[in-house]
Amino acid sequence: MAKKINRRDFIKTTALASTATTIMPRSLLASKKHKQVKLGFIGTGLRGQWVLSLAAKYPEVDIPAICDVDEDMIAGALKILKDAGKPRPRVYRSGDEDFHRMVSSEVLDGIYIATPWRWHHPMAISAMKNGIHVGTEVPAALSVADCWDLVNTSEQTGRHCMIMENVCYRRDVMAILNMVRKELFGELLHCQGGYQHDLRHVKFNDGQQAYGGGVEFGEKGFSEARWRTQHSVDRNGDLYPTHGLGPVSPMLNINRGNRMLYLTSTASQARGLHKYIVDNAGPEHPNAKVIFNNGDIVTTVIKCAQGQTIVLSHDTNNPRPYSLNFRVQGTQGIWQKDARSLYIEGLSDQPHRWEDEGPYLEKYDHPLWQRFQDKAVGAGHGGMDFFIVRALIETLKGSPPVIDVYDAVSMSVVTALSEESIARGSTAVNIPDFTRGRWQTNQPIFGLNDIL
Amino acid sequence: MAKKINRRDFIKTTALASTATTIMPRSLLASKKHKQVKLGFIGTGLRGQWVLSLAAKYPEVDIPAICDVDEDMIAGALKILKDAGKPRPRVYRSGDEDFHRMVSSEVLDGIYIATPWRWHHPMAISAMKNGIHVGTEVPAALSVADCWDLVNTSEQTGRHCMIMENVCYRRDVMAILNMVRKELFGELLHCQGGYQHDLRHVKFNDGQQAYGGGVEFGEKGFSEARWRTQHSVDRNGDLYPTHGLGPVSPMLNINRGNRMLYLTSTASQARGLHKYIVDNAGPEHPNAKVIFNNGDIVTTVIKCAQGQTIVLSHDTNNPRPYSLNFRVQGTQGIWQKDARSLYIEGLSDQPHRWEDEGPYLEKYDHPLWQRFQDKAVGAGHGGMDFFIVRALIETLKGSPPVIDVYDAVSMSVVTALSEESIARGSTAVNIPDFTRGRWQTNQPIFGLNDIL
Repeated sequence: MAKKINRRDFIKTTALASTATTIMPRSLLASKKHKQVKLGFIGTGLRGQWVLSLAAKYPEVDIPAICDVDEDMIAGALKILKDAGKPRPRVYRSGDEDFHRMVSSEVLDGIYIATPWRWHHPMAISAMKNGIHVGTEVPAALSVADCWDLVNTSEQTGRHCMIMENVCYRRDVMAILNMVRKELFGELLHCQGGYQHDLRHVKFNDGQQAYGGGVEFGEKGFSEARWRTQHSVDRNGDLYPTHGLGPVSPMLNINRGNRMLYLTSTASQARGLHKYIVDNAGPEHPNAKVIFNNGDIVTTVIKCAQGQTIVLSHDTNNPRPYSLNFRVQGTQGIWQKDARSLYIEGLSDQPHRWEDEGPYLEKYDHPLWQRFQDKAVGAGHGGMDFFIVRALIETLKGSPPVIDVYDAVSMSVVTALSEESIARGSTAVNIPDFTRGRWQTNQPIFGLNDIL
Repeated sequence: MAKKINRRDFIKTTALASTATTIMPRSLLASKKHKQVKLGFIGTGLRGQWVLSLAAKYPEVDIPAICDVDEDMIAGALKILKDAGKPRPRVYRSGDEDFHRMVSSEVLDGIYIATPWRWHHPMAISAMKNGIHVGTEVPAALSVADCWDLVNTSEQTGRHCMIMENVCYRRDVMAILNMVRKELFGELLHCQGGYQHDLRHVKFNDGQQAYGGGVEFGEKGFSEARWRTQHSVDRNGDLYPTHGLGPVSPMLNINRGNRMLYLTSTASQARGLHKYIVDNAGPEHPNAKVIFNNGDIVTTVIKCAQGQTIVLSHDTNNPRPYSLNFRVQGTQGIWQKDARSLYIEGLSDQPHRWEDEGPYLEKYDHPLWQRFQDKAVGAGHGGMDFFIVRALIETLKGSPPVIDVYDAVSMSVVTALSEESIARGSTAVNIPDFTRGRWQTNQPIFGLNDIL
């Protein structure tokens, strides 16, 4: 997830964005243009700094406080805010638990959380209990109990807990959502997604740089390698389901007319990470003795209340081109991203033949993208980050969250349940109904128009 | 599966093949060139006639008897044999059970079975008990008990029961097998396959022609629609797993160093067949009242003893381009057919970028294909049919079967087990070890060289 900031690109984008805000009517930026919102940041590592730089472009966003445990990262964040012309924030830097002090003593509308996975849940809980809305990086929580805790706390406090699943806003994904809504695929039958990304250079580095150059992790690693890799030692499941599941959830109306009933998960043997250590540092390196539990390829199959199936792939330990494995299929047609192709009966020229997805993605470009494309392009991860940050800010200004706490936990809980399924020989595991039945009457809300 | 015979192509291919046999040394055609073999045919429908035409090209193959219940189909078969210069066979045409009389009264080395699915098992059993080897169309049996019955009968009689899984011989699949054997993908982790084929025009027709033109099936249907469609009414599972599973089985050394341990299966809702009837004949057509039980998209995940996972897709009821969904992935690289792409670490030019599969498929073209390409091209289903028919004939001449009874049942049993898993909420179901432990010492045999 972490986006390495290229300084030159950053300045250029910032400058362009400033120009754009000058030229564009401010009403295009904000639904309630005069409302100022106060957004705190917990976690100002590489990902946090990047999101901070995007949020700092909004004149109506004040950033009164930040929190981290790493002085270099804090310095990076302060520089970003200074360069953006924002006042210097108060800094909470007194250890892992100092975020409690920040959310209890600061007056904030929301916080953004970009810390190692295990901190997302306690930070979100602490913030909501102090009356603060939450935008958390993925995943929102690591256990079923913690997922329920987020739901209960959000309901009790009336605070939102949004998950910052940026892929929901990927341009092709939103065009396909647009086509789904226009029923071009007919009734949906099956979706696929996943996280297929060779992360070996993220899970291991030389302790100096974020990406590669060595086989260290944990205390000797840097950035994500410091904490992310240990999950591959300790756990066996789909560790990162939200990039695949998030985008197809609104297509399938998950939590809003539909819900996920149960899943099975099956893991291959674990080979890639050990092989990487041996290939790059030899069999005598101390890390060559580490036993990695996480199967290299984890396949999860989900059954939905309205009948559809979802297949998720988790595949991060071996050489392979990046792919989120998207496929969307209904009674009228199919989109398959890896082939850059789709087929729609009655529209496609030749029966039984794939068509290039390009003209369809262009024709059905989502209204949000059409409205904001000039601002989105260059704003990280192909523009997705612009939209997810904007969605959080709009929520803080009073709009309903288009990705809410129920989405946050239904996307995130797959990890814990897939671990359980694998540990029990791929047995089917029920998925909790976090909406407590309201999925039957909740209406779709994400990406309905060009506003949110 | 049924191949519609184009008369002009057929004559042309036959003529070419005759020329080839004159020019080529006969030793290239047969491992024991002087042995004549006697091959009977049960089922001379469209598929049976096509295979009959291929077998009739072999001078060393005698076809003394055929069996069917349909006089038109029998006439078609007799004409094929006459045109090929073969003597007129004895014909068994006295009802569904007349095959027993044929296998008990004829002197045969082998029979080829191309009948509706439910007849494959009893016909194979009857033949083996009469000392006759079997080549059966897919699937070999429909229940776990019938799979065991095939194994037990084969072991007791010493007769082979080969499954005619032609996709094992697809040229790209064999090139990939070649690459797997040369360890270009490293240690395999994950394979995918499936049967993704819009069969609506096969499952429904007008009762006059084999493909489409109406929404009839069962007694009012013609060819496969007469019997195949009813399976989609009665059953819910992966009804046709062998085209996907057969080709990846030798890559994974299934039954020869590896075996399948358990599976889960999950089905989407069933919509496509009903929709097709309504779209084409209106909601008042009697067939619009039929309830189809077979989920449109069935996903099966298999776990192997050596750790690998296999994902199979069954998807035959809705508009979509044909695809067998192949993916082969290991610690060193990945092949993904739908993208016509592969990636091999250290070989591919650019890290993290797909390469066109073409040059690799050419470079690693399988020795069998290199030897027989002139004969295979034009011989049905892209040449696959040439190889599978040749494999049966070679087996009858004394070679060990490269696709044996254990392969036949391990490929076929997936249907019954997937039905059980789906009926029980996607629970994991154990896969029997039909080899009774011999998978641990059995050696790979399929596609090792240019002989078999």
